[in-house]
Amino acid sequence: MTDTDQHQPTTDPGSRQVLHLDQLHASLADPAMTSMNFLNEVAIRFPDAVSFAAGRPTEEFFDVEDVHRHLDVFFDHLCRKRGLTQEQARRTVLQYGRTKGIIHDLVARQLAVDEDIHVPHESIVVTVGCQEAMFLVLRALRSSPEDVVLAVSPTYVGLAGAARLVDMPVRPVKGGDRGIDLDDLRTQAHQARRAGLRPRALYMIPDVANPTGISLDVGTRHELLRVAAEEDLLILEDNAYGVFAGETRLPSLKTLDTDRRVVRLSSFAKTVLPGARVGYVVADQEVRDHPGTGDQKAADQGDGVSLLADHLSTVKSMLTVNTSPLAQAVVGGALLTHGHSLLTANTRERELYQRNLALMKKGLEHHLAPFADRVSWNTPAGGFFLTLTVPFEADDALLERSAEKYGVLWTPMSHFYGGDGGSHQIRLSFSQGTPESIDTGLGRLASLIADCC
Amino acid sequence: MTDTDQHQPTTDPGSRQVLHLDQLHASLADPAMTSMNFLNEVAIRFPDAVSFAAGRPTEEFFDVEDVHRHLDVFFDHLCRKRGLTQEQARRTVLQYGRTKGIIHDLVARQLAVDEDIHVPHESIVVTVGCQEAMFLVLRALRSSPEDVVLAVSPTYVGLAGAARLVDMPVRPVKGGDRGIDLDDLRTQAHQARRAGLRPRALYMIPDVANPTGISLDVGTRHELLRVAAEEDLLILEDNAYGVFAGETRLPSLKTLDTDRRVVRLSSFAKTVLPGARVGYVVADQEVRDHPGTGDQKAADQGDGVSLLADHLSTVKSMLTVNTSPLAQAVVGGALLTHGHSLLTANTRERELYQRNLALMKKGLEHHLAPFADRVSWNTPAGGFFLTLTVPFEADDALLERSAEKYGVLWTPMSHFYGGDGGSHQIRLSFSQGTPESIDTGLGRLASLIADCC
Repeated sequence: MTDTDQHQPTTDPGSRQVLHLDQLHASLADPAMTSMNFLNEVAIRFPDAVSFAAGRPTEEFFDVEDVHRHLDVFFDHLCRKRGLTQEQARRTVLQYGRTKGIIHDLVARQLAVDEDIHVPHESIVVTVGCQEAMFLVLRALRSSPEDVVLAVSPTYVGLAGAARLVDMPVRPVKGGDRGIDLDDLRTQAHQARRAGLRPRALYMIPDVANPTGISLDVGTRHELLRVAAEEDLLILEDNAYGVFAGETRLPSLKTLDTDRRVVRLSSFAKTVLPGARVGYVVADQEVRDHPGTGDQKAADQGDGVSLLADHLSTVKSMLTVNTSPLAQAVVGGALLTHGHSLLTANTRERELYQRNLALMKKGLEHHLAPFADRVSWNTPAGGFFLTLTVPFEADDALLERSAEKYGVLWTPMSHFYGGDGGSHQIRLSFSQGTPESIDTGLGRLASLIADCC
Repeated sequence: MTDTDQHQPTTDPGSRQVLHLDQLHASLADPAMTSMNFLNEVAIRFPDAVSFAAGRPTEEFFDVEDVHRHLDVFFDHLCRKRGLTQEQARRTVLQYGRTKGIIHDLVARQLAVDEDIHVPHESIVVTVGCQEAMFLVLRALRSSPEDVVLAVSPTYVGLAGAARLVDMPVRPVKGGDRGIDLDDLRTQAHQARRAGLRPRALYMIPDVANPTGISLDVGTRHELLRVAAEEDLLILEDNAYGVFAGETRLPSLKTLDTDRRVVRLSSFAKTVLPGARVGYVVADQEVRDHPGTGDQKAADQGDGVSLLADHLSTVKSMLTVNTSPLAQAVVGGALLTHGHSLLTANTRERELYQRNLALMKKGLEHHLAPFADRVSWNTPAGGFFLTLTVPFEADDALLERSAEKYGVLWTPMSHFYGGDGGSHQIRLSFSQGTPESIDTGLGRLASLIADCC
């Protein structure tokens, strides 16, 4: 076989088209994908098991009437506040629209009201959930084979997924008990550079992280920003859970960011409605057309200077064109209804998650008392998740047994380490539990642990 | 400077983060993007110009009440027909959901009713418009640097955009007056292979194409399927306009496909509502885990065999997780309301587009009569577009002059050739015109032509 005929047709004319997995993109043969499928499939196979597995928001307050109401509120806002005619308002919500979105101004208001973040509206791109936001940023930053992204480990699996789609290696940085090991961050950045790589950014969730539940303290936040500046790293701050961070919320990284080093990624999936699939990215970084500082004067006048958000918008125009304006309208209506505050909008939800967190802590103390010397768990200030450490391997095989024999589901933490770490840890999600299910589930978990200890 | 220090930090600690365009992905510096931005920007700068530029559906029948109604119809369907409880129905529409979508069964019914296409529900992935569908397919197919896609030229710009995001070269195939030059298709496939490349698929729009308005005749469709089989190419059939193809609709490529060679890409943007951003891909191709035909028996039993749709779903899970179920519900309600037929749903729209097409033909004959020996246009059977050929260069500069001096907008056909072709052609869109605007616009176009001839 010669070089030139290696790609000759291999099927007979007229025969049924068959593809082979090794001829499809490498992301599709990734073992991580198989393992995620396994998790979903276990949940489907054991529908009666108590689940501490899914990281979904509570359905307690779901109401289809809210959707109707929010849509009408937003439409009314377009006409009364933005001064559009009915025809223009209909066009805004029903026609193709602005790639960056139609609720960017409301998102900016929410960021000011809830987070003390003040950014130009033009720096916001409304996305199809946080997942698309991650993809847009990684696609833009992965410009050569040397570009890599650092990520605090354990990492939300969505980041690894988006990185795989652009063939961008993810290099882990130790998380530890404080949420990030800054010495290791420096070490990893240096090691990457020594290997001829270009670390572009650090991805992390600073508030009640998925999967660990850990939040950075304020000192660590400031220090992280300093290290990121020294190492010339962007910080990709994923802040999907910050609203639920507990009584004493800390300033987000973007709130503390004075030199436009932080790209904020977030989603309204947990704070408004998962079914809208609306998220956003704040990218107020300057991009200059030409390298070097030669034409500083031109740059000062704004010539050849754009926002990173403009470029993310260009990527989005080639990916999804725009985020459903209809879905945006529903989210916009929710923001308008609650004075642009997601904290206000989620009063009931925040109480429910805090109640569940308290029940988890109490329940773990009660049910796991017999194993007090062998198991431990962290006590997050809020969020959806906590970490349980056990003296045995908590892998997929054990999850399967747990589901079948004990009727309780959880997530092996190893899934968030790309397979290399977390073998004796479990992620427990409590966002969807009731007092009864939490008690029952933890009792079942105790039986599993008794069996393994 | 040595290899190892070339990626040292370049900004001073604490200084404002600045990025440079040459450090972002190549797609962002692509001249095609600049030119698309130019088109959008001209339309914004001259809002009073008559526009034959935008390829958007008519807004004549837009009604926000339809959104409310469709949502309720779908919700009701979930409860009554699918037998879900209210709680389950709420979860389906408002919670995170199935990556492949929640209206796949309704899409399958629509394909059967309108297109005589019969595919398993599992072969359908509901996407964020046709654009995401293109990305999913190209991402899956681009597995090595040799993988390229062929596309009939001139090509819808969205295909080129999606291909750029996965660094996949697009190799043009001549379109000509019949819609595709099959000899050139063979030539291009052979040339690509001789260059060591692997042509994976041919992208085309067989019905009333964007940008030309051309439809393939039935004989050409059959012949194309034969050539694709001989050349072992998938066909990516983009069929966003087929419903509007005119009185005598021809069978789609997927309708004629007997060996699962056609991947169908489509969108409900033109047929239900652009603001929903819902499209889909039909990918019923078999994918085998292991290359070769060694384990034919295992394959016959379905072991290690999946659908291409399953893999597109995996890519989607890393890209947008799922398509807004809320937006899907609105589209689903529309399908249910009209007996799963988009032909029925678009009775008024089809009449309007046909009326506009007739007005265009009549108007061109009338207004361009003085230049009858120097200009020509094609006469599509339907759709949104037609092609006007002129004896002068119709480039961006002329468009600017046309907008400013004559108050009429159109699209230089060169934009659809990647800059290499179509210099003397114009795309005229008539989907949004009224009888008055069409007459006025064509009068203005005649003045421009008089000026140039």
